Amino acid sequence: MTEFRLDYDRAARTGIAEAVLCEHKSAAQIAAIGAELMAAGRRMLFTRLRAVTFETLPEDFRAALDFDALSATAFLGTAAASEQIEGIGIVAAGTSDLPVAREAARTLEFHHYAAPITADVGVTGLWRLTGQLDVLRRHRVIIAIAGMEGALFSVLAGLVEAPVIAVASSVGYGVAAGGRVALEVALASCAPGVLAVNIDNGFGAATAAIKILRSVGR
Amino acid sequence: MTEFRLDYDRAARTGIAEAVLCEHKSAAQIAAIGAELMAAGRRMLFTRLRAVTFETLPEDFRAALDFDALSATAFLGTAAASEQIEGIGIVAAGTSDLPVAREAARTLEFHHYAAPITADVGVTGLWRLTGQLDVLRRHRVIIAIAGMEGALFSVLAGLVEAPVIAVASSVGYGVAAGGRVALEVALASCAPGVLAVNIDNGFGAATAAIKILRSVGR
Amino acid sequence: MTEFRLDYDRAARTGIAEAVLCEHKSAAQIAAIGAELMAAGRRMLFTRLRAVTFETLPEDFRAALDFDALSATAFLGTAAASEQIEGIGIVAAGTSDLPVAREAARTLEFHHYAAPITADVGVTGLWRLTGQLDVLRRHRVIIAIAGMEGALFSVLAGLVEAPVIAVASSVGYGVAAGGRVALEVALASCAPGVLAVNIDNGFGAATAAIKILRSVGR
Amino acid sequence: MTEFRLDYDRAARTGIAEAVLCEHKSAAQIAAIGAELMAAGRRMLFTRLRAVTFETLPEDFRAALDFDALSATAFLGTAAASEQIEGIGIVAAGTSDLPVAREAARTLEFHHYAAPITADVGVTGLWRLTGQLDVLRRHRVIIAIAGMEGALFSVLAGLVEAPVIAVASSVGYGVAAGGRVALEVALASCAPGVLAVNIDNGFGAATAAIKILRSVGR
Amino acid sequence: MTEFRLDYDRAARTGIAEAVLCEHKSAAQIAAIGAELMAAGRRMLFTRLRAVTFETLPEDFRAALDFDALSATAFLGTAAASEQIEGIGIVAAGTSDLPVAREAARTLEFHHYAAPITADVGVTGLWRLTGQLDVLRRHRVIIAIAGMEGALFSVLAGLVEAPVIAVASSVGYGVAAGGRVALEVALASCAPGVLAVNIDNGFGAATAAIKILRSVGR
Amino acid sequence: MTEFRLDYDRAARTGIAEAVLCEHKSAAQIAAIGAELMAAGRRMLFTRLRAVTFETLPEDFRAALDFDALSATAFLGTAAASEQIEGIGIVAAGTSDLPVAREAARTLEFHHYAAPITADVGVTGLWRLTGQLDVLRRHRVIIAIAGMEGALFSVLAGLVEAPVIAVASSVGYGVAAGGRVALEVALASCAPGVLAVNIDNGFGAATAAIKILRSVGR
Amino acid sequence: MTEFRLDYDRAARTGIAEAVLCEHKSAAQIAAIGAELMAAGRRMLFTRLRAVTFETLPEDFRAALDFDALSATAFLGTAAASEQIEGIGIVAAGTSDLPVAREAARTLEFHHYAAPITADVGVTGLWRLTGQLDVLRRHRVIIAIAGMEGALFSVLAGLVEAPVIAVASSVGYGVAAGGRVALEVALASCAPGVLAVNIDNGFGAATAAIKILRSVGR
Amino acid sequence: MTEFRLDYDRAARTGIAEAVLCEHKSAAQIAAIGAELMAAGRRMLFTRLRAVTFETLPEDFRAALDFDALSATAFLGTAAASEQIEGIGIVAAGTSDLPVAREAARTLEFHHYAAPITADVGVTGLWRLTGQLDVLRRHRVIIAIAGMEGALFSVLAGLVEAPVIAVASSVGYGVAAGGRVALEVALASCAPGVLAVNIDNGFGAATAAIKILRSVGR
Repeated sequence: MTEFRLDYDRAARTGIAEAVLCEHKSAAQIAAIGAELMAAGRRMLFTRLRAVTFETLPEDFRAALDFDALSATAFLGTAAASEQIEGIGIVAAGTSDLPVAREAARTLEFHHYAAPITADVGVTGLWRLTGQLDVLRRHRVIIAIAGMEGALFSVLAGLVEAPVIAVASSVGYGVAAGGRVALEVALASCAPGVLAVNIDNGFGAATAAIKILRSVGR
Repeated sequence: MTEFRLDYDRAARTGIAEAVLCEHKSAAQIAAIGAELMAAGRRMLFTRLRAVTFETLPEDFRAALDFDALSATAFLGTAAASEQIEGIGIVAAGTSDLPVAREAARTLEFHHYAAPITADVGVTGLWRLTGQLDVLRRHRVIIAIAGMEGALFSVLAGLVEAPVIAVASSVGYGVAAGGRVALEVALASCAPGVLAVNIDNGFGAATAAIKILRSVGR
Repeated sequence: MTEFRLDYDRAARTGIAEAVLCEHKSAAQIAAIGAELMAAGRRMLFTRLRAVTFETLPEDFRAALDFDALSATAFLGTAAASEQIEGIGIVAAGTSDLPVAREAARTLEFHHYAAPITADVGVTGLWRLTGQLDVLRRHRVIIAIAGMEGALFSVLAGLVEAPVIAVASSVGYGVAAGGRVALEVALASCAPGVLAVNIDNGFGAATAAIKILRSVGR
Repeated sequence: MTEFRLDYDRAARTGIAEAVLCEHKSAAQIAAIGAELMAAGRRMLFTRLRAVTFETLPEDFRAALDFDALSATAFLGTAAASEQIEGIGIVAAGTSDLPVAREAARTLEFHHYAAPITADVGVTGLWRLTGQLDVLRRHRVIIAIAGMEGALFSVLAGLVEAPVIAVASSVGYGVAAGGRVALEVALASCAPGVLAVNIDNGFGAATAAIKILRSVGR
Repeated sequence: MTEFRLDYDRAARTGIAEAVLCEHKSAAQIAAIGAELMAAGRRMLFTRLRAVTFETLPEDFRAALDFDALSATAFLGTAAASEQIEGIGIVAAGTSDLPVAREAARTLEFHHYAAPITADVGVTGLWRLTGQLDVLRRHRVIIAIAGMEGALFSVLAGLVEAPVIAVASSVGYGVAAGGRVALEVALASCAPGVLAVNIDNGFGAATAAIKILRSVGR
Repeated sequence: MTEFRLDYDRAARTGIAEAVLCEHKSAAQIAAIGAELMAAGRRMLFTRLRAVTFETLPEDFRAALDFDALSATAFLGTAAASEQIEGIGIVAAGTSDLPVAREAARTLEFHHYAAPITADVGVTGLWRLTGQLDVLRRHRVIIAIAGMEGALFSVLAGLVEAPVIAVASSVGYGVAAGGRVALEVALASCAPGVLAVNIDNGFGAATAAIKILRSVGR
Repeated sequence: MTEFRLDYDRAARTGIAEAVLCEHKSAAQIAAIGAELMAAGRRMLFTRLRAVTFETLPEDFRAALDFDALSATAFLGTAAASEQIEGIGIVAAGTSDLPVAREAARTLEFHHYAAPITADVGVTGLWRLTGQLDVLRRHRVIIAIAGMEGALFSVLAGLVEAPVIAVASSVGYGVAAGGRVALEVALASCAPGVLAVNIDNGFGAATAAIKILRSVGR
Repeated sequence: MTEFRLDYDRAARTGIAEAVLCEHKSAAQIAAIGAELMAAGRRMLFTRLRAVTFETLPEDFRAALDFDALSATAFLGTAAASEQIEGIGIVAAGTSDLPVAREAARTLEFHHYAAPITADVGVTGLWRLTGQLDVLRRHRVIIAIAGMEGALFSVLAGLVEAPVIAVASSVGYGVAAGGRVALEVALASCAPGVLAVNIDNGFGAATAAIKILRSVGR
């Protein structure tokens, strides 16, 4: 039985390299994928690789990885020294949303895109957001991350021209636990130009932003 | 069998007169209550009295009612010519939220409170809201009504000192149908001072505001 | 009380003109908005204007509207004879999804964008979809509409380079009633580049696509 | 990247000082915030700071904190010796609701308000509640905490003149697990004057009560 | 194909005669069942027989039925002149709960049990309930019906020795729409002796009460 | 602050002694209650007392308790040597339902009722159930416990005259996780005489059964 | 724009001819499909074609259809006089489930399979089911339809060797409204061999049964 | 009390031997069942036997078991050297779905059926699936396992003649957490011939496939 079929040509076909989602894979499965990749001399992005799993990977594989604990991501293969492509900005409503923001940023970096993060601009104190508008208005696509009631998405989309890719984060408790409220707020937003991806899906927001830049900016 | 027991002393006990919620009552039941009230010479507020039901009530009862179709409310008994008490303001995010706003306003009027409504101040165009801040900041308690994603609640509560009683309206479609998203946004709000009542419950928001003024302002 | 505050400058600020969502507004409210607009000589897009409501609007207002029953949209004001901007394509999984597809198309047309629709390409018979790939691959942004199990979104996003804005339609029964399953499929898609808007929200998909073209293609 | 932007002026603007919600923050993030605050000589309320996280904070920061394990709250900065403001009372249905009640009480204390708690007055034995009515009727605003079926909210609101801020606690099992039933009971209550905040949100109930006293009692 | 198989022996086996639930049956199906029953000279209870359906039944069948519009029930066959068995009481929280209360009462009457109804005893005004306690404490089994937040169930069960069969009614709006909240309140009740049946299921509550009296009182 | 108010007279008033639900209480709180009870020489039933919590209670308190790990219950105070009252039977669909069945049995034993358990009689092999009918038909009230799809409730109620108190157990996975399906099956049952309590609530089923025997069998 | 693409070759490819689901299609759309089919001389199965829609179709199209109101199905094209293939049986728990049973039967008939229906065999009176076992055990695949609590599925699967395709019907009220409970019961069934399709999906059950017979019986 | 009643004759009656679902059973309960089986010399399949539980079983019992950690299954009793029956194939969308695929495979093996697994054929890269079509089209029944958005089910069913038994796996996060989306996608599939079992229920899919082969292939 072939347990996995790596899609080496995906980047050529769609502009986005395949990534390995580690969450429901055992350390043994991840290590086997890593061994094949190292043997083939391939680059790869690993997401949702928790530190506790990372610690149990084979030492040579761990040594080959550029691991970031906050975002639970790892890069295999040195990033070529290319220039970073500008145009995408990341906005995080609160400090607690930074793991998701970092997952988006790391995904952008892996694909050689700049990934500036503007953090802690929730709408309870509007001055925090309006004080950053000059920076935010320079982006051509904005990835916004918010948990709890996610009011950031609507307010932000009303203030900038760029489309807003909204990522609900699972930060919250009570009715907001798990990120459902923030997600539905993004979907129900009255502000034109808000687009949603799955809860906590910083990776998906980043790859969509890249596809937008590649497809439209070409 | 006694079908209903009117609570004539409730206003004395709690400051809020009993009201008759008509939604799940038949026209015959409403008419019977009306007959008892007219015989006793009592005042009464009727809520959720749809026009189609109102039209089928006995003519003398209809003549005695001050009926408002938009809010589906009716007053029985002339309002005494007392002065209106100031302090409570109503804010509606959109035109579609006006039926709920009117239900709150009519409830306030029935209890001799002023009920100014500021309408169409959704956060997609922040200038609509910030342009009304001088008016809004004069209120001691604010009743805010919003459907869809309900972002108004958080933004408003961050801009005023008054507590905000949030009423989700059932205006919306898709994930926002029925008002659940707006309600949960109010509950999950990061802004201190947001308090929620049931979806579409303009009556409950108004009576709570009155209780606050009576209990705290005494 | 001011019942509505029209945002005449929104197009200048964000590239998208304000639209009037008619669903929860009474005919009287819509007519009042129409009167103000006609007096001011303004163009406007009306969405979710059901035929039964349209029939009850004042005759002069109706005469001024370009009404489309299938999509429940109307244009006020003649479209200037400008050329249509290319780049956005619409894909509908089934015949039943055409009302939502038309809402997206009409929104694009109102803003002077071309709006070609490729219909009935559900994945049960893959040949229906693969047979249209040459056409689909020419688009820079694709709006995809599907109800039931929404498998179209993932398959399509794996075949094209363009980002896919997924609109779940409320077409379905049993567990699929209301469009929730198709929406969640879009959000849970493993294929990079799938972005979701609210169920049945053809208008939101179209305005987001326009913002993408304006912001990124500039 | 700036990870957090503390809002030192919020108390001046809204009467409620900013607080730090620790639940989804790492110990490192909390410690960084603490270091900035200590350097600036600022007071701060920390909520949802679990004992296991508290134990891992830097020793000098821990020494500066007044920590309460039951409510998972901590005060940074000595409370000035001001008198406590009367008017707010807290009612807890059962012993299991005390952590939430204490979070409300600690929030009140941090803002120099008295915070008397009346505990174990669930409605199964009505005498427990009616025996405390003399005390409860003296409060101008009541914060009520209940889990399971939350019947306390309606019964209490029918017995007192003060508005009741209902906090559902996540105490319960089966259909009541997580506090949803108690929350919905508060929202659906037939008794006028019941206002809801998020499940377990003792902090939000306390800050709303303070806003009410400041705004209305001024 | 045999479309239905009437269970003539059920009363002998279980003490409860079969009933015909009309809600999802066509008038033709109900009429066919009626014809077989009339030919066989059998008694039968029909539930959820809406007036609009009743009006379309064959005239001879209608003439043979004792129809009650409020409860949407009908009896076929004259009730023998037996004495009514005492022991079961019905309590309805509000006027709007009377259709469900009547369904329970009619079911009891069909089986020759007394069915006294105590109405409009919601807990918002506790005196309405406590004023009826002498009557209520005489019952050996109590059927309680309440919509909205259903607080009646817990308070009542704390005041009487009899077991309480709780029937949530679908009376309510917003979060209470459909009766879910009242049902879950009954299930989550802290008061021992509360037993739940399906929403609006007055028939089920009555037959369960009869089974209790027959099985335990024998 | 009084943290708890024990209801020593409840047994006299309602026939059911108060019990202490330990699930959301700290060991310190349970120990404090235990100390008061031991000082007063009172009997008490403790439910949902997990073994890990039991192990941390003070030694003298533990020595005074009759603890049962499977059901997570404990008795304080020697059971008087009274005879056990017959009439109630317990049926468990599967081996995994035994913890809930034991909670019901222990509650009955504490109140001096016999508590025979018939186990592993799920309906997949009907012979398991029908083979026990002679025993089951002797009971005057039956407590039935089932998880997964809970088909036992309907089948059993169709075979016996006794009322069936259905307790959904949280045994199951996938759609059945948490016991919701089994609970709703009990509520939706077409078989007359099925009454539901909360998921896993063996205690509630037992106390309801006792109330039935006391109220009806008196 | 091509509005529909009929899949004339599907029967050849998969053994199941395409069908037209009429539920969300307008009469105009259905008529257009019908015109193309009649011009091409093709057979077709139409499902969920409500009588009110059927009445508005063009007269020549209506004349060409074999319409069945109970199941809301229609055949276009004369069924060839082939013999019917045996092996599939249909079981309906109650009279109210017959529309779904008929949809399955009509789908089978259209494909030249026999479609015997055994009706009204719910498990409340087990004798109704066990009395039909001889007939049921002759089938090689059984389609079972049940609403409410759906206990039929588990009991039946424990009594026969044939696999059981369970179709939850949307017959029910309260917690059972819409058919969710019956569907989840089928999914959670402990009995091996129960397979589920969507609620009310008699068509899907029939086509799956045909695929089983064609694929396995070949 | 008899805690369990093993159904030794089930294989004879239905073709599927009873299995022991270990998930909610204690190690002691599992060991007791094992002891009885070993004494009787019986074969048995154990499912959901986690490694941590397996490690705590008595040594002689463990030695007698053929345990597979990935699928959490164990065989008691040597498999007779019979030939394996062909006809059933297993398809897993991703590497993370292999535990469920293995549960299905082990169940097939225990019953002497071949169980080939085709893995990592998700639809994002259609070539992974289409490249395996020759193999897949040879199966007479296909068990397909997918998490996240489960698009595999519809696409696969459109490509093969065999019926597809869809098993949603609980692999996913955000809206896809727990497997609900994939399950509902299977149920809502437009492709004829998709049949669903419970989430993660590899055992149920395998036993259903066996019943199909035995009943139809006989």
